[in-house]
Amino acid sequence: MSRRIASAEIERLIQLMAKLPGLGPRSARRAALHLIKRKELLFVPLAAAMSDVLEHVGICTNCGNVDTCDPCTICADPGRDRSVICVVEDVGDLWALERATAIKGQYHVLGGTLSALEGVGPDDLNIVALIERAAAPEVNEVVLAVNATVDGQTTAHYISDRLEASNVDVTRLAHGVPVGGELDYLDEGTLAAAVRSRRPV
Amino acid sequence: MSRRIASAEIERLIQLMAKLPGLGPRSARRAALHLIKRKELLFVPLAAAMSDVLEHVGICTNCGNVDTCDPCTICADPGRDRSVICVVEDVGDLWALERATAIKGQYHVLGGTLSALEGVGPDDLNIVALIERAAAPEVNEVVLAVNATVDGQTTAHYISDRLEASNVDVTRLAHGVPVGGELDYLDEGTLAAAVRSRRPV
Repeated sequence: MSRRIASAEIERLIQLMAKLPGLGPRSARRAALHLIKRKELLFVPLAAAMSDVLEHVGICTNCGNVDTCDPCTICADPGRDRSVICVVEDVGDLWALERATAIKGQYHVLGGTLSALEGVGPDDLNIVALIERAAAPEVNEVVLAVNATVDGQTTAHYISDRLEASNVDVTRLAHGVPVGGELDYLDEGTLAAAVRSRRPV
Repeated sequence: MSRRIASAEIERLIQLMAKLPGLGPRSARRAALHLIKRKELLFVPLAAAMSDVLEHVGICTNCGNVDTCDPCTICADPGRDRSVICVVEDVGDLWALERATAIKGQYHVLGGTLSALEGVGPDDLNIVALIERAAAPEVNEVVLAVNATVDGQTTAHYISDRLEASNVDVTRLAHGVPVGGELDYLDEGTLAAAVRSRRPV
C-alpha cells in the first residue's frame, strides 16, 4: 500500500501483532483496533501485564521451564510429588500436560530433541541436569513425555540409556486410540500399538 | 484449573491476550509462550510499540478517526482530495476502505448508527461536526459509506436530510454482486439491486 492509513506507531503495532501465532495481517489490524477502542479496559492492562512478565521472565534453573520466578511455580510448589520427573521437549508440552492435570510430579524441559539432521547433540539439550536430578534419592520415576516423532523417540532412547545405571523407573506415555477418536481415521501404527497394549475391560 | 501452571503474571498476560479478537484461551496461551520464547526479537519490540501507541493515541478532532496524532494522518495528508468526505460508522470501516484504496478524499467517523432499539440518537453520534465540515466551500460530495443494515440505512437517510440545505452531492455505495461472488448464493435483495443498477458493458 502506498498511502499511510495511520501513524507509523500504529502501523508498527499491527505489524508486530501479525507475528503472533493465530493472527495474520488482517486479524492483527482488527486486534489492534480492538485494543485502541478499549484503551482503559484492555489496552492499558495488557501493556502493563506485558511489562510485568518481561521484567521478570526467565528460565527455571532447576527444570528449564519459563516463569517469572526461579525456581518456577511448579518446582516451588510443595504439593508436587518429588519422586516423579516428567521429561518434555518444550514448555508448550509442559503446559499441555498441566492443562490435562495428568502429572502430579515435577517436570524437566529438554529444550528440543536430538537431531542428526539439524546437528542437535546431547550437549545442546538440558540433559546433564536431568541425570543429576534423577540421581537424587527421592526420585523413583522418570516419565519420558516426548513427542511420538522419530527425533522424540531417539531422544527418549538416549535418555533411558543414560538413566540405566541409576535407580529410577523410566516410563513413556502409552500409544493408543485418542479419546473420542474413530478407528477408521487412525493410522495403522497407532491401531497396531493400541491392539498390542490392549487391556482387560 | 485448581493448580497454578505459571506465575500470576504469566496467567494474567494469557487471560488478557485471550480477550483479543481471533485469539481464544488456547491460542492466547500459545501466543504468550511464543512471545516469551522470542523475548528480544518480538516481546520487547511489541511491548515498546504498545507503550508508544498508548501514550499518544487519541481521536482526531476533525474526523473522529483514531491515530497517534491530531489531526490524524489522513486529515493531515496534503495529497487527499478535500472536496470529498466519506462518512463511515466506525474506524474499522475506514481502515477497510483504505485497504481497498477506494477513497481519495477524507473521512468522517460517526461512531455508530442511529438506533431506536439501543437508544442512540443523533446527538450521540459525530453528526454536528459532519454538517459543519460539509458546509465548507471546498466540499462538493459526501459519500455515505455506512453498512447496508437497517440502522445504517436509517442513519444515511437522516444525514442526507440534514445535508439537503447544503450545497453538496450526497452519494451512497452501490449495491451489487460482490466481485468473485456466485449468483446462486446471493440473496434476492442483492440480486434485485444488481439488476436495477445494471450498466452497459
